[in-house]
Amino acid sequence: MNHPAYQKLVDLSNELKLLSDAAGLLSWDQEVNMAKKGVGYRARQMAWFSGEYHARFTAPEVGDWISECEENVGDLDPESDSAANLREWRHGYDRETKLPADLVTEFARVRSLAHESWAEAREKSEFTHFAPDLEKLIGLCKQQAECWGYEDKLYDALLDKYERGSTTAEITAVFADLKKELVPLVEEACSQEPFDPVKVGADYSIEKQQAFNREVAEAVGFDFEAGRIDTAVHPFCTGLGPLDTRLTTRYMKSDFRSSLYGVLHETGHGLYDQGLREEDYGLPIGDAVSLGVHESQSRLWENQVGRSPEFWDRWLPKAAEYFPNLAELSVEEMTRACNQAERSFIRVEADEVTYDLHIMLRFEMESAIFNDELPVAEIPAEWNRRFKESFGLEVDNDSNGCLQDIHWSMGGFGYFPTYSLGNLNASHLFKAAKSQDSEIETGLANGNYTPLLQWMRTRIHEPGSRFLPKDLVERAAGSPVTADAHLAHLRSRYLFG
Amino acid sequence: MNHPAYQKLVDLSNELKLLSDAAGLLSWDQEVNMAKKGVGYRARQMAWFSGEYHARFTAPEVGDWISECEENVGDLDPESDSAANLREWRHGYDRETKLPADLVTEFARVRSLAHESWAEAREKSEFTHFAPDLEKLIGLCKQQAECWGYEDKLYDALLDKYERGSTTAEITAVFADLKKELVPLVEEACSQEPFDPVKVGADYSIEKQQAFNREVAEAVGFDFEAGRIDTAVHPFCTGLGPLDTRLTTRYMKSDFRSSLYGVLHETGHGLYDQGLREEDYGLPIGDAVSLGVHESQSRLWENQVGRSPEFWDRWLPKAAEYFPNLAELSVEEMTRACNQAERSFIRVEADEVTYDLHIMLRFEMESAIFNDELPVAEIPAEWNRRFKESFGLEVDNDSNGCLQDIHWSMGGFGYFPTYSLGNLNASHLFKAAKSQDSEIETGLANGNYTPLLQWMRTRIHEPGSRFLPKDLVERAAGSPVTADAHLAHLRSRYLFG
Repeated sequence: MNHPAYQKLVDLSNELKLLSDAAGLLSWDQEVNMAKKGVGYRARQMAWFSGEYHARFTAPEVGDWISECEENVGDLDPESDSAANLREWRHGYDRETKLPADLVTEFARVRSLAHESWAEAREKSEFTHFAPDLEKLIGLCKQQAECWGYEDKLYDALLDKYERGSTTAEITAVFADLKKELVPLVEEACSQEPFDPVKVGADYSIEKQQAFNREVAEAVGFDFEAGRIDTAVHPFCTGLGPLDTRLTTRYMKSDFRSSLYGVLHETGHGLYDQGLREEDYGLPIGDAVSLGVHESQSRLWENQVGRSPEFWDRWLPKAAEYFPNLAELSVEEMTRACNQAERSFIRVEADEVTYDLHIMLRFEMESAIFNDELPVAEIPAEWNRRFKESFGLEVDNDSNGCLQDIHWSMGGFGYFPTYSLGNLNASHLFKAAKSQDSEIETGLANGNYTPLLQWMRTRIHEPGSRFLPKDLVERAAGSPVTADAHLAHLRSRYLFG
Repeated sequence: MNHPAYQKLVDLSNELKLLSDAAGLLSWDQEVNMAKKGVGYRARQMAWFSGEYHARFTAPEVGDWISECEENVGDLDPESDSAANLREWRHGYDRETKLPADLVTEFARVRSLAHESWAEAREKSEFTHFAPDLEKLIGLCKQQAECWGYEDKLYDALLDKYERGSTTAEITAVFADLKKELVPLVEEACSQEPFDPVKVGADYSIEKQQAFNREVAEAVGFDFEAGRIDTAVHPFCTGLGPLDTRLTTRYMKSDFRSSLYGVLHETGHGLYDQGLREEDYGLPIGDAVSLGVHESQSRLWENQVGRSPEFWDRWLPKAAEYFPNLAELSVEEMTRACNQAERSFIRVEADEVTYDLHIMLRFEMESAIFNDELPVAEIPAEWNRRFKESFGLEVDNDSNGCLQDIHWSMGGFGYFPTYSLGNLNASHLFKAAKSQDSEIETGLANGNYTPLLQWMRTRIHEPGSRFLPKDLVERAAGSPVTADAHLAHLRSRYLFG
């Protein structure tokens, strides 16, 4: 698009990206490097950056520029770069400007109180300590949803915040298919004879874990001239520039799998970031499309690739060079050691097969809460009832139940489903990729990850935010995402028969 | 001061500090962490920050606020916080606004060209390749000096940029005293029998060097809860917040002294930063006063403290725990191994006794250049002539002579003297401190560094930029800085008799 207002938006978009990448570095540094006394000043800096970002993006002239462009689209191809950028700027601008200032302030205020009351409630396993703040946050999120607007359910406006275009109806449908098969599958997977953990137990030097992880990350395609891996309490991936992708992981001396799969997961995120088009950096079409698609890339490299027998067929000899105790294991044993199902209370510790049950429970709870069907006071009992139904376990205390996750204390309702969408997308895309290009499977068997990565580059990474997430996945795979591929994937991995 | 304009200046000053600290992190990260492909985008970010800083600080209303305050000072105590802040804001504002925009742009343009032509000239040892850009930079710096104004010499306006209030006349006088005694002292020190380097030669593990250095830094008072030490190509110290001080050093496997004295030097800078008043952070009175005072703190802990016999009496047993080969050395041998004089071409490799000769040569050259007494074409011959005179060595090529330093290629004329001022201030302050408080020497003998640090805290760190640098030093020491204490210090260390 050649309109002067469009150029102004391009410049602003690039400038805002420079600014938010600097804030990204402040945050990365806080997790990875900063000594503890720095925290107060760093928080003030971060607040300054988010205020500055908001003020620049929501300036009245920005709205005028967007409107001017919209009035002058003429016969602009709706799939063109400009049309996609314009669509995303409008969406972001409306999201940021439709909330009245006092709602923004009140939300920030309650969030910070709720974070404290949640942390204390979790420590004491005392839901009532968190309940009043949770009630307020739900009320404020309802107000936000009303400001943003929705077609069907109020909760849709919250879902859309984390996964553009997703709705309660769509997610309910796909989760229903998943759950029907997953419950018996979990039952069967958990009754498999467990693999003797003694066989992988050892004292794994952190330096050797780092060297092995790096070899793996490099082999699957991570560019270490445009990124690095550091140590942090929570594994994460953050992009600080078009050629600057930072991964973190953590290490267990007793189990090399923890850091390896942490790194493979974050490498998947990192490959997505490194695959975005450099020339469009700073614009929506140069940016990752959604959490659910981002998570598909991390899960793909962690699970579909990294926990496969083909992976261990290739990497077990190398792993045994670093960790001689592994030389006693067969490829089959190693694969099994990396694919073990067990029912447990805590989502973040769950294996691949039980994980989605945790998510569906949260999605159903949130749906009910925002449909006014579940009062706050009843959350613990309802959680425990549903947990018993899905997992067959009695929740012993709320810290192992409805108080375990940080998300609600941050007002992050609508976030959880993106994790399972990531799993479903990963399996769906992996299946499509293999059926479209026979070199992918040959490559995986030979430790050549380029065909798979190239497929993702072209179809998922390079389009950036050109399409809505579900459209992107459907275009890439040739069919909309369902639970089928994921269920087949889980069956092939978790049932040893 | 209670005027509304004063409060606006306080808020602006705090905001600019938040911003420049974020830029500081971008720069620190580039030196310490960033992978190489990140460099282009990072440069754009840094440029954005410096543009943003300049624009905010030089906005016309800022000048109005300063003027308003100046008109309303009434009977404000000239030594009050407000008066000092106002004096520094005025000085900074005038410095930033007195240059016409086209001069700023042209200076930045020529600097970046000159950096390249200098690097190439140095590599080829071909001065003529750099001469045209150097000529232009000198011309532009003369224009800058005219814009800023000066009382006596044009060069004073450049000196003032790096050391507030310093003048050619004052520096010439103190350097003349220094040089008269230093030339024979260097002669004598360099004719001492050299200490056999074989005795300290070993293979020093980097992990052990890090652990030993950290113990030393902690013992002299560096707060690791408010800072850290990392590895970088060039050792430096940078403050990223009131409680976030970052040091870097580099390691030689063959010689632990390199990283130890690197760390002690940067720790001295870090102690200054950590000693500034937290409640005044972001304001001139909470900021370090000058390069020459900063350098006095780094030199003090590196040289006066760290290379003393008392230091090694205390630390040799600990060092020998980390590095058993050192157990064979006596305290006297170790001290001698850390105080060896040798004439050499390169300033950054020079020992403490020859160092100031390098600086004085540069100061005299710059004085002559800006006094129109030394045309660019004659710089190499003049450098070599003076070098022969001071060091008794023939410069073999310009890379070992007038092309060795980066400063001129950046237009940094006036910077060099701050290094020697640092040395003189360190000795002057150290002598005064010991004579004022007898516990300081007792402490140093017993490894208790608190009395010395406390003296510096109260008299040098906590005043921030309340006084001009030379006034601060004079108030602290009770007399203005001369070369005497430094010459006495060098004699005691470098003449083994």
